[in-house]
Amino acid sequence: MLSIWAPDGIGEIREGADLTGIVADAVRGYIEDGDILLITSKIVSKAEGRRIAAADREQAITDETVRVVASREHPNGVTRIVENRLGLVMAAAGVDSSNTPDGTVLLLPVDPDASARVLREGLRARFGISVAVVITDTVGRPWREGQTDIAIGAAGIRVVDDLRGQTDASGRPLTVTVAAVADELAGAADLVKGKASGRPVAVVRGLPHLLTEEDGPGARALVRGPEKDMFRLGSDEAYAAGFEAGRAARTEPRA
Amino acid sequence: MLSIWAPDGIGEIREGADLTGIVADAVRGYIEDGDILLITSKIVSKAEGRRIAAADREQAITDETVRVVASREHPNGVTRIVENRLGLVMAAAGVDSSNTPDGTVLLLPVDPDASARVLREGLRARFGISVAVVITDTVGRPWREGQTDIAIGAAGIRVVDDLRGQTDASGRPLTVTVAAVADELAGAADLVKGKASGRPVAVVRGLPHLLTEEDGPGARALVRGPEKDMFRLGSDEAYAAGFEAGRAARTEPRA
Repeated sequence: MLSIWAPDGIGEIREGADLTGIVADAVRGYIEDGDILLITSKIVSKAEGRRIAAADREQAITDETVRVVASREHPNGVTRIVENRLGLVMAAAGVDSSNTPDGTVLLLPVDPDASARVLREGLRARFGISVAVVITDTVGRPWREGQTDIAIGAAGIRVVDDLRGQTDASGRPLTVTVAAVADELAGAADLVKGKASGRPVAVVRGLPHLLTEEDGPGARALVRGPEKDMFRLGSDEAYAAGFEAGRAARTEPRA
Repeated sequence: MLSIWAPDGIGEIREGADLTGIVADAVRGYIEDGDILLITSKIVSKAEGRRIAAADREQAITDETVRVVASREHPNGVTRIVENRLGLVMAAAGVDSSNTPDGTVLLLPVDPDASARVLREGLRARFGISVAVVITDTVGRPWREGQTDIAIGAAGIRVVDDLRGQTDASGRPLTVTVAAVADELAGAADLVKGKASGRPVAVVRGLPHLLTEEDGPGARALVRGPEKDMFRLGSDEAYAAGFEAGRAARTEPRA
């Protein structure tokens, strides 16, 4: 049996807020050793002062972009899917202008894995328990409608559950072997936290085998680099690059 | 509070098995009105007789393929990411050879939304309750390591939770507006069902607002068609198509 609970009572988070203290107050009396705490990156960013003045949201996106993966124009502007400095491929590089006053935007935490470690250590210090911490953000996916939450920061948890070498119920080797459990947890928590409910934190109980003693490699280990990825570039962008290369062949001397 | 429970005691499923009866026996005494039942497509396929003789697994994949999205050679063969007849983009078209005797493969259900409706109606008839049913399968994702479960069939559930028009805690419109809740549920259930545990069914309790009276459009509504998708073709494949088109420009008469 797994349970997920999302406390209310976490109000607006201001820059410099004692996030660990606020979260600890919200989960006090409930959280136990072996639980997994999930927290929306938005409030981590706010506490860490990642709200910046940005007259031009597009420029803020450009500043956060390491590599443009795909872009498409539509009547209201341009959607840009980019890889940001965390290696995450997401729309608008993770720059959020929906939860901030006009003229400002909210960037992702500088190092969400580090933020997760700080929260984990803070909860250990306060309550004397060992929990895992996962920081989440919302992304779109190729081929699927709608968005889901994924893990962008993590501490104290096996972010993938590697089943290679195990067998199914009939004794045959499992071909699907690496479950992205931190992403599945992020999505599960989103079902309870919701986007509009003012509940940015959730506690998952019932998966103690996923917890680790060490902080571990964090959510960074869930990032697949472009060199390994079959979709490192949007279809239109790859086609255009191929077209240019093909046309350039015209200028080569002919045999 | 959300809870997820995965009963044990569901053994090997044979062709022609009374799947509704088997599932009903497993959840009897627990399942309630408003619950969401998630079931691994593998056992739906087995009950529906979707195990076929296939001396050549590659040919079986080809037969299930509507459109090749990307492929890559590696030392053990070729990985093919394809769109299958359900509109799902997945490796090997969803053809599974890990859970079947040698010389056979397991195909996906012919119509997983219809299978979900049959299960829903069967549970209503047996227990006099209204539940939602989601049929799941496991997929890889661009840009992320590891696999997650998604919804490939559904009945009685809002597969996306459309938040457009709602506001966040501070009154600003939500920009991320359509949560793919059926996929988040599939991933959440996978955390409990597991791949190796012999628990192919899970019951989620605590999200009654996602249930609908009608069967609804099913998981098909989560499929984004290639015409809308920025990643309808793998990067290498799109590049190659562009290169050919660019080179063909050589043969055009020059001004």
